[in-house]
Amino acid sequence: MGHCVELLAVGTELLLGSIVNSDAQLLSRELSALGLNVYYHTVVGDNPQRLRQAVEAARSRADILITTGGLGPTCDDLTKRVVAECFGLELVFHPQCAQAIRDYFAQSGREMPENNLQQAYLPQGCTVLENRWGTAPGCAFEAEGCHVVMLPGPPRECLPMFRACAAPWLSRLSEGVIRSRTLRVFGLGESQVEQLLREQMNSLANPTLAPYAKEGEVELRITAKADTEGAALACIAPVEEQVAQVLGSYLYGKDGDSLEGVVLSRLLERGLTLGTAESCTGGLIAKRITDLPGASRAFCGGVVSYTNQVKGAVLGVSRDLLEAYGAVSAPVAKAMAEGARRALGCDLALSVTGVAGPDRDERGNPVGLVYVALAGAGFVQVRQLHLGGCAARRDRVRTLAANHALDLARRYLCNLPPEEGTKQEEAP
Amino acid sequence: MGHCVELLAVGTELLLGSIVNSDAQLLSRELSALGLNVYYHTVVGDNPQRLRQAVEAARSRADILITTGGLGPTCDDLTKRVVAECFGLELVFHPQCAQAIRDYFAQSGREMPENNLQQAYLPQGCTVLENRWGTAPGCAFEAEGCHVVMLPGPPRECLPMFRACAAPWLSRLSEGVIRSRTLRVFGLGESQVEQLLREQMNSLANPTLAPYAKEGEVELRITAKADTEGAALACIAPVEEQVAQVLGSYLYGKDGDSLEGVVLSRLLERGLTLGTAESCTGGLIAKRITDLPGASRAFCGGVVSYTNQVKGAVLGVSRDLLEAYGAVSAPVAKAMAEGARRALGCDLALSVTGVAGPDRDERGNPVGLVYVALAGAGFVQVRQLHLGGCAARRDRVRTLAANHALDLARRYLCNLPPEEGTKQEEAP
Repeated sequence: MGHCVELLAVGTELLLGSIVNSDAQLLSRELSALGLNVYYHTVVGDNPQRLRQAVEAARSRADILITTGGLGPTCDDLTKRVVAECFGLELVFHPQCAQAIRDYFAQSGREMPENNLQQAYLPQGCTVLENRWGTAPGCAFEAEGCHVVMLPGPPRECLPMFRACAAPWLSRLSEGVIRSRTLRVFGLGESQVEQLLREQMNSLANPTLAPYAKEGEVELRITAKADTEGAALACIAPVEEQVAQVLGSYLYGKDGDSLEGVVLSRLLERGLTLGTAESCTGGLIAKRITDLPGASRAFCGGVVSYTNQVKGAVLGVSRDLLEAYGAVSAPVAKAMAEGARRALGCDLALSVTGVAGPDRDERGNPVGLVYVALAGAGFVQVRQLHLGGCAARRDRVRTLAANHALDLARRYLCNLPPEEGTKQEEAP
Repeated sequence: MGHCVELLAVGTELLLGSIVNSDAQLLSRELSALGLNVYYHTVVGDNPQRLRQAVEAARSRADILITTGGLGPTCDDLTKRVVAECFGLELVFHPQCAQAIRDYFAQSGREMPENNLQQAYLPQGCTVLENRWGTAPGCAFEAEGCHVVMLPGPPRECLPMFRACAAPWLSRLSEGVIRSRTLRVFGLGESQVEQLLREQMNSLANPTLAPYAKEGEVELRITAKADTEGAALACIAPVEEQVAQVLGSYLYGKDGDSLEGVVLSRLLERGLTLGTAESCTGGLIAKRITDLPGASRAFCGGVVSYTNQVKGAVLGVSRDLLEAYGAVSAPVAKAMAEGARRALGCDLALSVTGVAGPDRDERGNPVGLVYVALAGAGFVQVRQLHLGGCAARRDRVRTLAANHALDLARRYLCNLPPEEGTKQEEAP
């Protein structure tokens, strides 16, 4: 039976929703990598009585308690006072902490308000956790069977202090490590993924396999616990392979990968350039590709053709085509991609035209009807998408349309078959 | 003595740090606006026993319990089963929920896996909270002196459901209201704003006035508590006026406003159209404008000119100019804006050219050197920006560059003086 961690954040601003509890997320990741199980997160306000109750509840169900926040002079060092009291410890003055606080102010050229020195009082017998990123020192101690760590609230102090000071102190409690791998899936819904992998999900205990729905895609997380990192990774590998076989070309990457990232690296590998012609996505695809450092080595540029005038003048889409089929149509999507390829001088061009909403277009096409196309040397592919339904929101339609366009390019660049429903033609 | 709310989030992915508990932040803000006090946030994993204990702890210290997550088919509807059990309620089948789930799948054109129907089982006697943003319905009930609301986990479902269904159900419990107004400031740093308003901030108690730094801008929040909405708003109004006088043209909007939103509404008011020519922002400005419904009535389109070839062929920037000054220069920024105005056929055109990083450009220009320009009938304005410094990150440089370009358009459209350092010339 391993240890059980509870994270206790102290701060009324969290309960008002002024800030999000990012400390809990950051520390959970670090603890999980150390092989320590986090079972609870709790948040209370700057209130001594409720904080005391929360500490009592935490120590009754966890044997490692990590507090964040409530250490600075503005909150009267609430956390330190209350936690020390709960464990029957006195606060004692640490001269070397006082000196560190004075030095911090001297180095940043500011005058030190006297109330900062109360931060130098820490529970008797504790290990001082030095704060090189701010003024409030943290501390760690063991009392009555519970391991307690106190860290400051600001994430830019909390996280580096955890890594530098708290993690080494806690590591002796850890039994093994937890490692996880995220597999990224595009083109299948969460419940479809679940049906394909239900047997594996139910039968696996270590590693575990679980799906998470994201906007427009699905993540599959494989998590293993083992004595060493090598053993955890070895435990993950066969499951990853099995999942890859089941999901085939729907699996597009792992961990930090993104559709645009995969497209960019395949472009660079193959020495090809890309351009875009966007109508309803309005620059979103170009923006996502150019978010990536090094995009300029493969991305030539794009045209946001929000009006028919721009589709004609810049992309060379003929007025006849626009009148015959309307701007939201397969022929116009193809002509946009081919026009972008010419105008931008790139090897491949993606285009998107559709109805993002909130209203139908002037031809009565429904929100969510979108065409994506890819033009290259001698070919053009086009695909019709229905991204509507009762939950169609403008941002969701745009995100999904951009994902589908990028997936068209990904499949082409990775020599994978196009998604069902994609039409390919030869082109001049 | 008012009511006391506890938010209980269910999901192992929160305890692993895979996602942050943004539901807690979003709901805390909404509850605070309703005048309900949130005293605790708790997070537990997908574990029936620990969830049961968390529910018991919550009902012992709070009289309003709001759960998020654990409602979907993949988690076996954990939250519903355990919470119903804790309050001694049976889960009963709701045919109208089953129909809503079937309709949701039919409208999005996907097949419904049978396991989705278990979502139609809800505690006996509850109020069903309809989910128009996903499949899992929520519910609300009162039992044994506790008010319980269950909402799905994904924030894009949780927040709109809270607003549409849960808030009306809870509002009868609220005593007094909290209202806040956010004032949006661009062009001044947080400490500059603080210095200008220090006296007001320190002297005010109700309403309070507090600044929050956001990426590239500052928010000022005025928050008042009163018996009625009208009284709270009356309390806010004079402070808002005072702040507006101090900040002048740096104050660009309030609450949900954005720089692009202000630009779009002024364009519509004045019957003008806009286009963009983006180099280092790579489509970000066009993307932000077209995020807004109705953008097509004023936004013609844009060109992402990532290469000099595109700057020449599409925007007509001469090779001589590019060779003489380099792509990152005031003359090229002006030529891009003028070229976009011609190519896109719009009244006003914004351009951006700069070094987003991570590396200097081939002429040795530093990361963060950016030029923004605005071209209109007979004039062109250009401004040099230094967005670098030791903390220059690619995404930050891009966001700030886009903000500055939009602010150039905002000041022109609102008949405000351009920011210091902006050069204006007559142009053909």
